[in-house]
Amino acid sequence: MATTPALSAPSAGASFEKTTIDRRELRGEDVQIEISYCGICHSDVHQARDEWGGSIFPMVPGHEIAGVVTAVGPEVGRFSVGDRVGVGCMVDSCGECEYCVAGEEQFCVKGNVQTYNGREYDGTPTYGGYSRQIVVKDRFVVAIPESIELADAAPLLCAGITTYVPLKHWRVGKGTKVAVVGMGGLGHVGVQIAAAMGAEVTVLSQTLSKKEDGLRFGAKEYYATSERETFKKLRSSFDLILNTVSANLDLDAYLRLLRVDGTLVTVGAPPTPDKVQAFSLIAGRRSLAGSAIGGLPDTQEMLDFCAEHGVRPAIELIAAEAVDGAYDRVVSSDVRYRFVIDATTIG
Amino acid sequence: MATTPALSAPSAGASFEKTTIDRRELRGEDVQIEISYCGICHSDVHQARDEWGGSIFPMVPGHEIAGVVTAVGPEVGRFSVGDRVGVGCMVDSCGECEYCVAGEEQFCVKGNVQTYNGREYDGTPTYGGYSRQIVVKDRFVVAIPESIELADAAPLLCAGITTYVPLKHWRVGKGTKVAVVGMGGLGHVGVQIAAAMGAEVTVLSQTLSKKEDGLRFGAKEYYATSERETFKKLRSSFDLILNTVSANLDLDAYLRLLRVDGTLVTVGAPPTPDKVQAFSLIAGRRSLAGSAIGGLPDTQEMLDFCAEHGVRPAIELIAAEAVDGAYDRVVSSDVRYRFVIDATTIG
Repeated sequence: MATTPALSAPSAGASFEKTTIDRRELRGEDVQIEISYCGICHSDVHQARDEWGGSIFPMVPGHEIAGVVTAVGPEVGRFSVGDRVGVGCMVDSCGECEYCVAGEEQFCVKGNVQTYNGREYDGTPTYGGYSRQIVVKDRFVVAIPESIELADAAPLLCAGITTYVPLKHWRVGKGTKVAVVGMGGLGHVGVQIAAAMGAEVTVLSQTLSKKEDGLRFGAKEYYATSERETFKKLRSSFDLILNTVSANLDLDAYLRLLRVDGTLVTVGAPPTPDKVQAFSLIAGRRSLAGSAIGGLPDTQEMLDFCAEHGVRPAIELIAAEAVDGAYDRVVSSDVRYRFVIDATTIG
Repeated sequence: MATTPALSAPSAGASFEKTTIDRRELRGEDVQIEISYCGICHSDVHQARDEWGGSIFPMVPGHEIAGVVTAVGPEVGRFSVGDRVGVGCMVDSCGECEYCVAGEEQFCVKGNVQTYNGREYDGTPTYGGYSRQIVVKDRFVVAIPESIELADAAPLLCAGITTYVPLKHWRVGKGTKVAVVGMGGLGHVGVQIAAAMGAEVTVLSQTLSKKEDGLRFGAKEYYATSERETFKKLRSSFDLILNTVSANLDLDAYLRLLRVDGTLVTVGAPPTPDKVQAFSLIAGRRSLAGSAIGGLPDTQEMLDFCAEHGVRPAIELIAAEAVDGAYDRVVSSDVRYRFVIDATTIG
């Protein structure tokens, strides 16, 4: 056991406290990582405030982790001390089911182990990246390419993979017309990835307040969804709509923006059911789909893709003391575009 | 103009009357068809009773038409007098848009012309197959293979193509696990087509009352959706669920029956919106989709496929006088499995 400083929420909605947690002794396949940076994902807020139910407290959130290897177990071949590495939303899975074998650990039949607010298969609660050190099985560690700063790499481990996978799965590329709904932590990365894949990208945001940024990130067009005219003008325009907003939208209105055989894929789950008219799908053979993170091979591929194409999140670096305030600003969408905690300030 | 006997609904929900209608003089690309049989589709009932709104009266329904060519215009090369032919849901489209060029006339940008309860591009109302004769542009006429009886061919022109296209589009084949929801006019054909494509087919029907038929049509399993146990047992089982039921289902329960990357495709539109939890789609990267009929090349391909694989609807042949009663039996699902009108009884 090694004790390490951490930022912990003692109960639902409580302020974060500096404390220490124990990390396990290195097993054969384990990698010990000194955490440099950890991104703040909107799902951190949901879980720390127990908005989805079932949260485990005390909680140390954080699944956008970037750092440096400080030790490896005897069976680890892929990483060495000093390597720049990242950890995302999962830290274990069964390793044997068809999905694990295919490198799609997010679909593990046994259920994967979440990086925080989860339990290891032996029942031990998991603690995430708002800390100075973490010990993770090597399969769930990815290499961060040299050209990506560690602070920039952190948000890619969730926001990057969450947007990369649906864009890849639905074969976005040259000639594809993509709309990204929402210009937040996920959206601003999704726009960059879709553009880097060769797509013609349109942002659909509530207002035009972030238009300049959107165009800078690679969007060709930028429309306000608060204007009904947008939904008339863009009818039957897109092959894929990537919805990064976790609120209930007028899905029928968005589905009508799809071309024949188009897909509206959502990566954020609103708390209440969505409504959809079957006719919106039947007309134009359209699909409404969902997607969540991605497996480890895709996570590595995504980082390499971002390195090659210059995809970088826009971050606001904060100290541990600022996390409570940052949570409020995440909820009010007052961040351009992702908070990243400087882990050296944790303790 | 040629006058021909027809069965007409004078107003919404009124009994059918024997009358005569005019068919246009043959234009260069026109095929004149003596109608032998016409199937009764559930959508005939919806439209004759104006349940979708906007119906045009008097109405001569019918878009499952099988008959024999009696004359052709001078520009028709594909058909000759005496040919056995069919007409489905469309009788015209722009012919120039990307979808028409691709043989996907159902997606015509200008809007295709429905076989009945529609209007030609010049404004003339269209009258369907509950009549003795029809004149149709050759592009919208398909050849009925020798091995398919005309009475059996009729329902394939809508029920067949409506189920064939989604099964083809979502790549059903050997190794695919398909569930067909509903064992009515569409479902009983869908089961046969999916099985003929090589899929392992399960029927999900309200009760087990049609189980023997389902297995005879090629299903391997048959479950009652009225039993909650069904939804536990079949969790994560199917690659594709073909939903032929036009009622609001508990879509979340059905989506959970899909494997990773599975699709629930619906071909029937309930009048009120469906509810769906985004999480049901996000977990397992599942899709909810819709599909409607198919283009002319696919319609011909479907008929040829049915001929080759022995796919035949189970029909109940009726005379013109029985149509009103048949409509009530369609609504109460009291038909195994498709009514077909013997057109010679119309007049």
